[in-house]
Amino acid sequence: MYAIGVDIGGTKIAAGVVDEDGTILAKSRRATATADSSSVDRGVIEAVRELAEQFEIGAVGLVAPGFVSSDQRTVMFTPNLPWRNHPLRDNVASALELDVPIVVENDANAAAWAEFRFGAGRGVDDMVLLTIGTGLGCGAVVDGVLLRGAWGIATEAGHLRVVPNGHQCGCGLRGCWEQYASGNALVRNARAAIETRPDEATAILDRCDGDAASLKGPAVTKAAQAGDPLAIELLAELGTWIGEGSAAVGTIIDPALIVIGGGVAAAGDLLLEPARAGFLSQLSGRGHRPVASIELASMGNDAGLVGAADLARTAV
Amino acid sequence: MYAIGVDIGGTKIAAGVVDEDGTILAKSRRATATADSSSVDRGVIEAVRELAEQFEIGAVGLVAPGFVSSDQRTVMFTPNLPWRNHPLRDNVASALELDVPIVVENDANAAAWAEFRFGAGRGVDDMVLLTIGTGLGCGAVVDGVLLRGAWGIATEAGHLRVVPNGHQCGCGLRGCWEQYASGNALVRNARAAIETRPDEATAILDRCDGDAASLKGPAVTKAAQAGDPLAIELLAELGTWIGEGSAAVGTIIDPALIVIGGGVAAAGDLLLEPARAGFLSQLSGRGHRPVASIELASMGNDAGLVGAADLARTAV
Amino acid sequence: MYAIGVDIGGTKIAAGVVDEDGTILAKSRRATATADSSSVDRGVIEAVRELAEQFEIGAVGLVAPGFVSSDQRTVMFTPNLPWRNHPLRDNVASALELDVPIVVENDANAAAWAEFRFGAGRGVDDMVLLTIGTGLGCGAVVDGVLLRGAWGIATEAGHLRVVPNGHQCGCGLRGCWEQYASGNALVRNARAAIETRPDEATAILDRCDGDAASLKGPAVTKAAQAGDPLAIELLAELGTWIGEGSAAVGTIIDPALIVIGGGVAAAGDLLLEPARAGFLSQLSGRGHRPVASIELASMGNDAGLVGAADLARTAV
Amino acid sequence: MYAIGVDIGGTKIAAGVVDEDGTILAKSRRATATADSSSVDRGVIEAVRELAEQFEIGAVGLVAPGFVSSDQRTVMFTPNLPWRNHPLRDNVASALELDVPIVVENDANAAAWAEFRFGAGRGVDDMVLLTIGTGLGCGAVVDGVLLRGAWGIATEAGHLRVVPNGHQCGCGLRGCWEQYASGNALVRNARAAIETRPDEATAILDRCDGDAASLKGPAVTKAAQAGDPLAIELLAELGTWIGEGSAAVGTIIDPALIVIGGGVAAAGDLLLEPARAGFLSQLSGRGHRPVASIELASMGNDAGLVGAADLARTAV
Repeated sequence: MYAIGVDIGGTKIAAGVVDEDGTILAKSRRATATADSSSVDRGVIEAVRELAEQFEIGAVGLVAPGFVSSDQRTVMFTPNLPWRNHPLRDNVASALELDVPIVVENDANAAAWAEFRFGAGRGVDDMVLLTIGTGLGCGAVVDGVLLRGAWGIATEAGHLRVVPNGHQCGCGLRGCWEQYASGNALVRNARAAIETRPDEATAILDRCDGDAASLKGPAVTKAAQAGDPLAIELLAELGTWIGEGSAAVGTIIDPALIVIGGGVAAAGDLLLEPARAGFLSQLSGRGHRPVASIELASMGNDAGLVGAADLARTAV
Repeated sequence: MYAIGVDIGGTKIAAGVVDEDGTILAKSRRATATADSSSVDRGVIEAVRELAEQFEIGAVGLVAPGFVSSDQRTVMFTPNLPWRNHPLRDNVASALELDVPIVVENDANAAAWAEFRFGAGRGVDDMVLLTIGTGLGCGAVVDGVLLRGAWGIATEAGHLRVVPNGHQCGCGLRGCWEQYASGNALVRNARAAIETRPDEATAILDRCDGDAASLKGPAVTKAAQAGDPLAIELLAELGTWIGEGSAAVGTIIDPALIVIGGGVAAAGDLLLEPARAGFLSQLSGRGHRPVASIELASMGNDAGLVGAADLARTAV
Repeated sequence: MYAIGVDIGGTKIAAGVVDEDGTILAKSRRATATADSSSVDRGVIEAVRELAEQFEIGAVGLVAPGFVSSDQRTVMFTPNLPWRNHPLRDNVASALELDVPIVVENDANAAAWAEFRFGAGRGVDDMVLLTIGTGLGCGAVVDGVLLRGAWGIATEAGHLRVVPNGHQCGCGLRGCWEQYASGNALVRNARAAIETRPDEATAILDRCDGDAASLKGPAVTKAAQAGDPLAIELLAELGTWIGEGSAAVGTIIDPALIVIGGGVAAAGDLLLEPARAGFLSQLSGRGHRPVASIELASMGNDAGLVGAADLARTAV
Repeated sequence: MYAIGVDIGGTKIAAGVVDEDGTILAKSRRATATADSSSVDRGVIEAVRELAEQFEIGAVGLVAPGFVSSDQRTVMFTPNLPWRNHPLRDNVASALELDVPIVVENDANAAAWAEFRFGAGRGVDDMVLLTIGTGLGCGAVVDGVLLRGAWGIATEAGHLRVVPNGHQCGCGLRGCWEQYASGNALVRNARAAIETRPDEATAILDRCDGDAASLKGPAVTKAAQAGDPLAIELLAELGTWIGEGSAAVGTIIDPALIVIGGGVAAAGDLLLEPARAGFLSQLSGRGHRPVASIELASMGNDAGLVGAADLARTAV
């Protein structure tokens, strides 16, 4: 059975037809008009209609970047779109008049499911996906089932407190893991190093034409891959935080595998090795238990779309 | 169907026959000979035999205070007994020659299951149990299923790091939640207050006959219940840590209910109110999501025994 | 002997003639042209000339908001003015052609000296001044002598680390005391509370016409003085950090008195009481030693000017 | 002029005659009878008498491991001897009937003075001494004057809080620097590593005959000097904490030199290099200021005795 997955982001809507092996047969994209929520709905509806005209569709999965209610119909809250308790599923369903299951899923959850079914997590029953771009998203599969929680808000690990009274987070709390294990953290630390250790920061500065304010994470990664010691140190610090926070998540969930996706994954072993060391250093019961693997994700940016389509299919 | 539950602790073995409503029909107890592991096995075997002669038994659940393998046969590690990769299930099964399922379960997991099925968690699908005595044990039910993890070591939340470089824990790590949210933490803080704030500590000192070294947690609770301001402050600090750590666990699991059991639960609202406030203060997405309840456990010290019996029955 | 003090801030230059009792006999003010450093020099020179024509002057003290060299001639670094290793003393001296001592002093040091000589610290030999406005400045008098350090950069307590891996500071480090004990911290915490606890934040929001982005510290103080519980809580948190950090400074310096000046001092006891409690809670050797007093400053915004004038006089 | 210095420790009393170059001309030692305070007094008196019979003495300096009153007569508190507000100076003076100045000094202060006058700090006006043995003692010289504070309790830096809610300290507070930067911390961390990383800990275990409970700090140092990676890592962690805490002290005092003495100094560069890196990483204003040196002490175990003798001489 074919299913459509629609990934609704802050800047674009990406839809695709996904077969039972997780392969995308056709895609459709449009910009997100974030100003009003009904235009986002319309974009989603148009994308699904366009693809449903070309393929026989058995289910539709919608991916939203925020809190999704446990009945998978409503987006309760999302920081990057004007949605508060937005009945996304019902709006889309009533417009489409398709007689197939339509469900909404959180973006990190959908991506975790895709990695579990078709990607780095195949063959593993208990796994965690961390999608680390500007922020940190997290999804988990527990004994082969997606972990959703009582209200659909499980695995909000980006807001796990890792430092009491730590960095202020945009969520209102302090010391959230996302403030230490994200592309934004990498850039913040790189800028601080440019300020306090200018002699060591020339290679990084070269990659942003001397303008620290315009520095982005990939520039640090590229400098590290070219052998710059400060950039390597900055990635190692990021990796250590990824690993230490993963140990906290692992203390609760006990996964066999932790998968790292998102933009920072481009750093590869420069990130993974410190992450594994950080994980091990904070592993409870070390020496008396197996140790989870930490590996790179394999599904790329379409993971959310593919995962949502597959999850929708299971609802049939 | 009747099932036997056997709770194997550091000092005693408690066994009971449990019916399908979670009621204990008969009990048997003996001391734990911790010196060698085979004598503990023998105690378990004797206890089961004694009860199996009186009731027709359909399953046996054994409760161990440590890491239990995911096939529920082996105790991989336990700090208070001389067991390392100990084949408890097979030892007991071969001696008993009963043709019924025999399974091993971690103590906090078994207690969580008992609260879920028969206690404070009835009617709730997603819940966490914290058993807070000298240490902190944790078990969780996710969507009606006990959370075990890839290797049976999920919800070791007592060793979640809540303070980087914090108190040294007996497990070898630092800053473990158990070091802040346990009866031992309460006593340590009370002793520190006796040393640094002697003028305020007279009521607490009176309850241990002036000997801080002999102070125990219940003495602090009783002083607080009698209105002593320092004791109330100490319990509030304990409760705050319970709540803040619960928020961390909740960020991963998103439970509807957090149940507090163990010795410190005797403090009731003196503990629960600060715990609820601490939880709320660290709740990610506060204001955009439902808030989990925090309540006292209702199954008492037999929770582990009852839960293990019931879990064994589900294996039939 | 009369002396001139000149307080050079980021927005204005304030000069005054100060007598031996610390009384200001005449004042002169002008805006700071921060764009180029020579125009700041000119503003200082004009201000001194204007006052020196009216009074017979025996010394000139210049106050700079930054690192001042130990020979009191050069401003090595200042965050709010374009000065790097700027020979302020020599520039001013060569232009003025006055045959009197001219010295440069750090702003918080000068203010501390003023409080010591004429203000809240009269009669005390060992004291600390904290000037808490948007940031946190600190100066100290040790056994009747201003504490300057080997390179003139002592008592930079605003950048004492109080939380490892804490809030990012503009200085490039993390967890600096200033990030927790300043007007900026008060506003940041108030905004976070508006976001996460909107029901409790109405009184604060009313005082900034519903626009959290425009919220300033005094609005929180006024709400607290009118009895708003959230505002009182926010000031108490600020006070607690002031007190706990003061205990750290006290552990090194052992002062008899800690004086709180700057904008946040307007909160009075709403700040002082929590500060005293926070100090006591972190006092090393509590119970075996005297406890320093924590009091409000009495010299107001002219403290720097008066202190610099008096320090210059001692150089005669 | 010759002066006698007497170093009163928890286990022994060491006295010596010191000339104006800091050279010890004669010594006398006896065990400390800690059970009652008058016997300690008697030991001190005997030691002074014995030396005073051989040399013409102009002053006597007594070194006490605890809080010494600012008039240098009374030991207010000491953790290792039964002294509370003990009039040490007057007891000794009335028994001796010598017509010379007799003063009491804190042990770390006296050692700091010795390093300043005759050791690693010669030629430096602003310096800090850290004596790091089982605990961490600290003394400082500011502009050529010993820093004593309002009540004689300055530079109790071992109890500076470096980790909020960190390790419990024997002083009743938590997170004291001494809990991270001392021989005790080194041993505690080594034991934790033996528990959680047994495969890497064989070289350390060999040096305590396989008995972790009997492990002492010098065994770790020796293993590191022999190239053991885990021991090197443990010393590096210790050094990092020494450096980071030194940056905190430096933020207040701005010394030109930080001197490391005590037992852990035997590790030399294995400790100093990480200490320098840790100091630099937490230096406020880095890049805009000179950087203090971190060097080993040169006066050895007699530093306290020599410093106290010299300080007593200045009282003449």
